[in-house]
Amino acid sequence: MSDPGGENLLWADALIDSLIQAGVRQAVISPGSRSTPLVLACSRHPHLRTWTQVDERCAAFFALGLAKQDQSPVAVIATSGSAPAHWYPAVIEANHSGTPLLLLSADRPPELQGCGANQTTDQKHLFGHQVRAFFDPGPPRAGTDALEQIKDLGMEATHQATGQNPGPVHINLPFREPLIPNSIPAVTVKQPAITTPRSPLQPDQAQIERILEITSNEPGMIICGPDSPQVDFPPAVAELARRMGVPLLADPLSNLRFGAHAQSSIICRYDTFLHNQKIASEIRPKWVLRFGAAPVSKTLLQFLETSRPTTILCAPRGDWPDPLHQTSEMVRADPVELCNALTEQMQGPIEPEWLQRLQRAEEQVQQVQLEMPEENPNPQLIIEQLIQTIPAGSTLFSGNSLPIRHLDSWSGCGSKPIRILANRGISGIDGNISTMLGLEAATGTPIFGLLGDLACYHDMNGLLAAHTSNGVLVLLNNGGGGIFCYLPQADLERFEQHWLTPTNLDFSKMAELYSLNHYRITQQSGFQPALAAATQEPGLSLIEVMIDREQSQAQHQTWLDAVRSS
Amino acid sequence: MSDPGGENLLWADALIDSLIQAGVRQAVISPGSRSTPLVLACSRHPHLRTWTQVDERCAAFFALGLAKQDQSPVAVIATSGSAPAHWYPAVIEANHSGTPLLLLSADRPPELQGCGANQTTDQKHLFGHQVRAFFDPGPPRAGTDALEQIKDLGMEATHQATGQNPGPVHINLPFREPLIPNSIPAVTVKQPAITTPRSPLQPDQAQIERILEITSNEPGMIICGPDSPQVDFPPAVAELARRMGVPLLADPLSNLRFGAHAQSSIICRYDTFLHNQKIASEIRPKWVLRFGAAPVSKTLLQFLETSRPTTILCAPRGDWPDPLHQTSEMVRADPVELCNALTEQMQGPIEPEWLQRLQRAEEQVQQVQLEMPEENPNPQLIIEQLIQTIPAGSTLFSGNSLPIRHLDSWSGCGSKPIRILANRGISGIDGNISTMLGLEAATGTPIFGLLGDLACYHDMNGLLAAHTSNGVLVLLNNGGGGIFCYLPQADLERFEQHWLTPTNLDFSKMAELYSLNHYRITQQSGFQPALAAATQEPGLSLIEVMIDREQSQAQHQTWLDAVRSS
Repeated sequence: MSDPGGENLLWADALIDSLIQAGVRQAVISPGSRSTPLVLACSRHPHLRTWTQVDERCAAFFALGLAKQDQSPVAVIATSGSAPAHWYPAVIEANHSGTPLLLLSADRPPELQGCGANQTTDQKHLFGHQVRAFFDPGPPRAGTDALEQIKDLGMEATHQATGQNPGPVHINLPFREPLIPNSIPAVTVKQPAITTPRSPLQPDQAQIERILEITSNEPGMIICGPDSPQVDFPPAVAELARRMGVPLLADPLSNLRFGAHAQSSIICRYDTFLHNQKIASEIRPKWVLRFGAAPVSKTLLQFLETSRPTTILCAPRGDWPDPLHQTSEMVRADPVELCNALTEQMQGPIEPEWLQRLQRAEEQVQQVQLEMPEENPNPQLIIEQLIQTIPAGSTLFSGNSLPIRHLDSWSGCGSKPIRILANRGISGIDGNISTMLGLEAATGTPIFGLLGDLACYHDMNGLLAAHTSNGVLVLLNNGGGGIFCYLPQADLERFEQHWLTPTNLDFSKMAELYSLNHYRITQQSGFQPALAAATQEPGLSLIEVMIDREQSQAQHQTWLDAVRSS
Repeated sequence: MSDPGGENLLWADALIDSLIQAGVRQAVISPGSRSTPLVLACSRHPHLRTWTQVDERCAAFFALGLAKQDQSPVAVIATSGSAPAHWYPAVIEANHSGTPLLLLSADRPPELQGCGANQTTDQKHLFGHQVRAFFDPGPPRAGTDALEQIKDLGMEATHQATGQNPGPVHINLPFREPLIPNSIPAVTVKQPAITTPRSPLQPDQAQIERILEITSNEPGMIICGPDSPQVDFPPAVAELARRMGVPLLADPLSNLRFGAHAQSSIICRYDTFLHNQKIASEIRPKWVLRFGAAPVSKTLLQFLETSRPTTILCAPRGDWPDPLHQTSEMVRADPVELCNALTEQMQGPIEPEWLQRLQRAEEQVQQVQLEMPEENPNPQLIIEQLIQTIPAGSTLFSGNSLPIRHLDSWSGCGSKPIRILANRGISGIDGNISTMLGLEAATGTPIFGLLGDLACYHDMNGLLAAHTSNGVLVLLNNGGGGIFCYLPQADLERFEQHWLTPTNLDFSKMAELYSLNHYRITQQSGFQPALAAATQEPGLSLIEVMIDREQSQAQHQTWLDAVRSS
């Protein structure tokens, strides 16, 4: 007997099972009718964990957080119409950060397209150039051949999302009514395969030799930017730096500032000491070996722009993450393999004075004492105490704008393992709460977050997922987009209205709405006790630190002046 | 002396002035750095009103509301990166509802593209097929010729957004640093021109004659769907119906249910009486003359699908809003001109029995009394009392999903002018609060809203604009996506988790967060007094009506059963 609703489900089953065969283990689902076959298939698959998010924008950022935890692909499902369009900001972040997402949009069938049918729009290529691939299999068809076709498509899509250049992939899936089977067929699933193995890209031996020639016996530096995701990268690159005798400038998002790897070459206060002209003028690297994306520190980028070292950039994804346009050797190889090959073949370290010069610079600025005439909370101390207090093994999610720059300046480094992550692909202030809670959900351990007030407002809907989360969100409430106070816009007429844009929200009421524990910190001395208490509490705690924007900026300025003249 | 920041501003001045020349009077701005030249130009133009919205998703929906008020084009401005991607859901709604938006995204210049520069992505054709046009003028250039070019581009873009097929238009605008002039040049603006006149599309005389041949002396009906925006359309079509002696089936979003135009032919309870098989079988229209988009009522669409009348559809925008694929005469003319031409040339009304049959059906179902064993709030009474209580001249913004269907069933009609609007282009539950507050801002008179709880949660950020608004938001809180209870999904396992998706939020706390007056209605008798009180209060009031989902659905069923057997 014909059961078109059953055919829809078998088709969805085949697709979902194929994603799981290829490595997907989690799906984030937003409610809707047209997506019902996909949701049914997800719901009954024994090897898939599902999450519910009403707001599709939060859903996609939550999925991004799940996926960022270990770079495993995550599916996102929404109904037809404007629903999948809410994914777009997270899709752009996933594109630029190389995060694998499988975007499954339900759609109306072709006969309802272009004729004013309800909740129907052209969903083909909805995300333009922002996805690695777009698939358009058409409405479900019955029969073994058709099911084999959709299975292959699901595998291929997942491979595209997780390949050499991981990222978002969009599959648009029209379904005809009825969306529900007359009788629900038995589920037949395969035991998920071990993910298709992929050998790491080996570096080219001729290029290794050229790099050794550039770097041998010359003062240089290794710079690790954001997004060096592999767990075996930190020891490999730290060992290379140690053997070369060169400094390793570690971005706060490089995962090199904290951990058990060798710390002897790590330099983490360059964003500060490069403000000191005397120090900066003494540091003249002949070469730079870069890993990951461009560093957060604008000061470092300006330093590189001026000093023009010969630049070797390891970018296995095939992109060209060099806004300075200085790269002379582009290495399309696995970063760990590159480090290991260089470590094996190199001659020996250069004179220790070069590394010592940078280490002295680190020490010099560390000794600059902050003027603290007031008791108000101070971002530098907040960062230092946060890093000091959060438990080993924690993940700290940082907002963009000021929070990540504060971390860059003041996180320091150390052997306590702390993982610092941020949405640094496109560096938006959007979706931060959802990403943070996605990370929490993926790790299952309490998360720590550091956000500004505009970022907190922007993704407030993300807090709906907080009811099952544990962690501490430190909210630096400086009354609007405080970063603009550091920019020339600060002197413009209508600065507050157009750039600062304070929300004037009382975030204790947001905490009530979402049942968060709330601490409001108006004195610096209150922060560490609150953090210690919040870390012990179940659920998500919000520590709202009231920053006096002008005073804080003035203090920052005083401190930088002291650094400059130290 | 060279002042590249000044050149940026002159270029932005020229663009903004040209938009204003072509009819733009309002701009909605989200904060950012790269967009500074555009914001400066907006801020200093004497003929532009600016609005600030931190969340770009809200910004675009707010602009949509401003534009929906009178179909005048509104500019939306955001910085580079993921920021403009948040506009996408509103862009899709604007596309399908034919609402003119000028989307001005700031961008980084070409030399920062594709090289990992911060907050930089490929913004070209960001909205794919969803916009009427995309413009890509490149970075600002100095000199008279360049400024004339950008002026023409701004005019053309606005004409594209406001032309025969109005909708969203995207202009991507890269700027190089510095973003601020050394010295701010004097502003030179033109007095805004009267918007370029456009003569209404005249109907073709041969087609008029064919339509008269189809309709003369045959029972037929005029159906006005959503989005018949012109103010002179209701009297013209009401007069045509009166002269033809045919019923005018008025969708709740047709702006024909309420107003000073002739009400004698208006039928507004078809969604109810067509459930009665006896009534439905007696109504056999030979022809249908349709205006606007497809009606909200699924019952009416199913009735048309079965009765297969000869269908004439007036669609001046050039789209094909006929999901039933029944249209035999597609009229590409102005609706008012078509009505007037038909009224002038027609022979005379048909036998009055035809209209009377439908009027009797209206009366028959009006007399079906609702069983009300409980005191709990009941959606039918809420709708009736809302329509009765809101002041003449008010705008009522309806959410999609259940609210608009409740209005369809129970709004009735009358001579009190009430304008009912909804985002019916793509019928999402997104952006509703922002659209409503945009409408309020455009009218400057208190707005009324009717939303479900998921829609309210989805666009909660939109409430940040409420601090300057006046009106009443009636929130039908039925604990999730109540519409799914009417669909076969209701019987599925994990219905609540995957489809109903209640947020479990206490909306009184949302009201506190956004400083709204809050009324919680747990008994039907409390609604009208609360509405009367809220209507008098300054600011935005939230009337949260607690709907017992199961009881309400059972009552609805009982009532429909009574209609069927009446």
